[in-house]
Amino acid sequence: MGKNKNKNKVEAITPRDVDFARWYTDVISKTELVDYSPVKGFMVIRPYGYAIWENIQSLYDKRFKETGHKNMYFPLLIPQSLLTKEAEHVEGFAPEVAWVTKGGDKELAEPLCIRPTSETIICSMYAKWLNSYRQLPFKYNQWCSVVRWEKTTRPFLRTSEFLWQEGHTLHETAEEAQEETMQMLNIYREVAEKALAIPMVVGRKSEKEKFAGAAATYTMEALMHDGQALQSGTSHNLGQHFTEAFDITYLDRNNELVHPYHTSWGISTRLIGGIIMVHGDDNGLALPPAIAPTQVVVLPIVMHKEGVLDKAYEIKKMLEKHFRTEIDDSDNSPGWKFNEWEMKGVPIRLEIGPRDIQNGQCMLARRDTGEKIAAPLDALDEHVEKLLSDIQQNMYDKALAMREEKTSTAVNMEEFKQNLSDNPGFIKAMWCEDPKCEEAVKAETGATVRCIPFDEDQEVIGEGKCVCCGKHAHKMAYFARAY
Amino acid sequence: MGKNKNKNKVEAITPRDVDFARWYTDVISKTELVDYSPVKGFMVIRPYGYAIWENIQSLYDKRFKETGHKNMYFPLLIPQSLLTKEAEHVEGFAPEVAWVTKGGDKELAEPLCIRPTSETIICSMYAKWLNSYRQLPFKYNQWCSVVRWEKTTRPFLRTSEFLWQEGHTLHETAEEAQEETMQMLNIYREVAEKALAIPMVVGRKSEKEKFAGAAATYTMEALMHDGQALQSGTSHNLGQHFTEAFDITYLDRNNELVHPYHTSWGISTRLIGGIIMVHGDDNGLALPPAIAPTQVVVLPIVMHKEGVLDKAYEIKKMLEKHFRTEIDDSDNSPGWKFNEWEMKGVPIRLEIGPRDIQNGQCMLARRDTGEKIAAPLDALDEHVEKLLSDIQQNMYDKALAMREEKTSTAVNMEEFKQNLSDNPGFIKAMWCEDPKCEEAVKAETGATVRCIPFDEDQEVIGEGKCVCCGKHAHKMAYFARAY
Repeated sequence: MGKNKNKNKVEAITPRDVDFARWYTDVISKTELVDYSPVKGFMVIRPYGYAIWENIQSLYDKRFKETGHKNMYFPLLIPQSLLTKEAEHVEGFAPEVAWVTKGGDKELAEPLCIRPTSETIICSMYAKWLNSYRQLPFKYNQWCSVVRWEKTTRPFLRTSEFLWQEGHTLHETAEEAQEETMQMLNIYREVAEKALAIPMVVGRKSEKEKFAGAAATYTMEALMHDGQALQSGTSHNLGQHFTEAFDITYLDRNNELVHPYHTSWGISTRLIGGIIMVHGDDNGLALPPAIAPTQVVVLPIVMHKEGVLDKAYEIKKMLEKHFRTEIDDSDNSPGWKFNEWEMKGVPIRLEIGPRDIQNGQCMLARRDTGEKIAAPLDALDEHVEKLLSDIQQNMYDKALAMREEKTSTAVNMEEFKQNLSDNPGFIKAMWCEDPKCEEAVKAETGATVRCIPFDEDQEVIGEGKCVCCGKHAHKMAYFARAY
Repeated sequence: MGKNKNKNKVEAITPRDVDFARWYTDVISKTELVDYSPVKGFMVIRPYGYAIWENIQSLYDKRFKETGHKNMYFPLLIPQSLLTKEAEHVEGFAPEVAWVTKGGDKELAEPLCIRPTSETIICSMYAKWLNSYRQLPFKYNQWCSVVRWEKTTRPFLRTSEFLWQEGHTLHETAEEAQEETMQMLNIYREVAEKALAIPMVVGRKSEKEKFAGAAATYTMEALMHDGQALQSGTSHNLGQHFTEAFDITYLDRNNELVHPYHTSWGISTRLIGGIIMVHGDDNGLALPPAIAPTQVVVLPIVMHKEGVLDKAYEIKKMLEKHFRTEIDDSDNSPGWKFNEWEMKGVPIRLEIGPRDIQNGQCMLARRDTGEKIAAPLDALDEHVEKLLSDIQQNMYDKALAMREEKTSTAVNMEEFKQNLSDNPGFIKAMWCEDPKCEEAVKAETGATVRCIPFDEDQEVIGEGKCVCCGKHAHKMAYFARAY
């Protein structure tokens, strides 16, 4: 990295509370996570951003495989005739797909769309593959990119192309499909909470917000520092909507020809946006150790003094056996380096100078708290391991406290609006489940139903009356403005 | 898998020497590696095929990272104006790209092509990122899919979409770029030979066959069982062709504004086609242990006898700590299972029955030789490890012997044609490097120059005269018909 180019880099980040949107844009560009490409709405994921994605990917992929899923790859392009087979689905996606109309020099007889999601093409093949109940369940997943033509875009949060995974399963019974839908939602949540250190609210989407073609959509929702929600992963019980439309049948245990039950589920590079907006601060990124591309950066202090660099390399070599470790031996000033690696969100900065060496120790600075701790060079790896795990936990706890602070309840629209303006965040309120109330709330406040929590997480707010119409309501829902 | 559906599956594979093309098609579909998608020329990579790709990918990715490369991700779509910036490049790729002309409901102002390769869009960003020699080298790679509109397609070998990686690097000097080009070619070759067990011939491509826009293209070429060559990976020294066309400049050590030197390199799912056509036989696939999704399959014999299944599970549990292990406890007959797993190319079939248990042993059957060996249950993992490594080596040796058998020399066109008809394969022959001779050989025989070996691999064939025009020739080249 060019020295001059980076000077005063950190100073250039807009303070988070002055302008959250600009702060976000500053952080992602100055830390070189992404860049804007020559194609409007499409992002370039730079190596530092991609390394975070690789870590997220490998954690989820491991869980998918442990639960019996296998990866596969389907074509990028989907014939128009397939996309239009399931009525709700085409209505939901047709307005936002990109169309290929020419291949080589020739106009195509039928336009092909770039997959916005792959239910349709996958179902067309599942119909061919499935014959007998003995083959079920089908538990397959693919990692790929999808394209949805968006008007307003923001890197990671909403872009015309993004990276994701899409699981697609078939089952003998409705119960099994529902179990799978829940299992994947739970895996999404567990990894997000444990590795990304982002607490999640989970529940069902309203009819209006569910996936085009689903029987039910379940979601995990996170709260960002500016009080807006981020839909972070969805798991769909698709019932038999697609398996009927695509005529997927098999001979069941009674030798009858029936349609299987179907699920799909996805998480995407959007999660990186969540990490930034939950954990970042005025100094830049703060990355949870579990997904940080660099967990420890070693900074030799007074580098030219004999023995310092050697010791720093020795420490790096020892630590990199267990942790993702880098050393910064550039000729930038220590102050510059502190700022740079802080901005990059590296969980631990390890400083080692002549005096430290004399004392058989080094200094460990935590990104999450700023605290500096002297650590003996003996058993340094155990120290670092313990510290990384403390940081991971502390980041989750802080994020949870932040969310709780920004979560309120409302019993009527007045209170609802007051809360949104005084303390933007999640609002827990009763809802009669009438789409008219949902639309009225959105029109008046910009907030949407993020999810209806599962029974075990339900509460009665106030006297159990719909926040909008005042009629008796069975369900509490989370409302928020959302990305 | 449905029992009835698969009966007599193995019998249905066309013998390899009767019709190689049909044999190939039978193997890939019956082993469920791939399927034909609803979009002409596009393949579905099924879980068994994709698992091979994941193994190949992880081996290469490890080597890329060890040599200091980082992954990133660039947009799928490239504006027409970027594609056309480097003259040779556009000429080479324009006839085979797919064009997106509509996004959502709107016609696009400028058509976007789906990347056939990403030099152009990557260079447009490198131009923005690079400022100083201190930032060099740039050593980045991406794993993605690319689209090239092909008229005649065959799964893995030539499809309109395929998965690959493309490395893109920038360097201060021509020497460094050349070193990088060679380093990546060597990594390609090493992994291909060690893990895929496919011996490679390496060298430079002729001017006619080089990458559109390259200063020089280097290639590794493998020989298939039918005597046709498969270009298996290429590494391009792009000189300053693209960095000039895209105006990538930086301040060098003398504070002068100069263009960097540039390389790119790629391998693809085509390698899977190579594995099939080098190692497969009349019984189906044969997979080298290093990339086999399943390395050992445990088959309990006389399953209903007390203790057999338990022992089989115990063995599976023990082996799966070290090897990719599966158990087949389906109610198919042992004979059916033998054929099935043989067809799937699993390197070791482990049989365990009541008598084996009594004798404290099991039977290990090798896919590569068909040999069956009794192995004591004590220290079984060491046995299996040794056997897998023997199989890996033997598969390479067999492939090398096959290639040597099918490699001949020719001093004139008569001999050349005779060889191609008697013993199709590589023909080593002198070539004057005149494109006219290259074209004449192709027109007369269908064979092309696969590569011109490096100096250390050069030989003088006959009296050192061009096989076509008879003039004095400095170089020996490998010729073959190719996929």
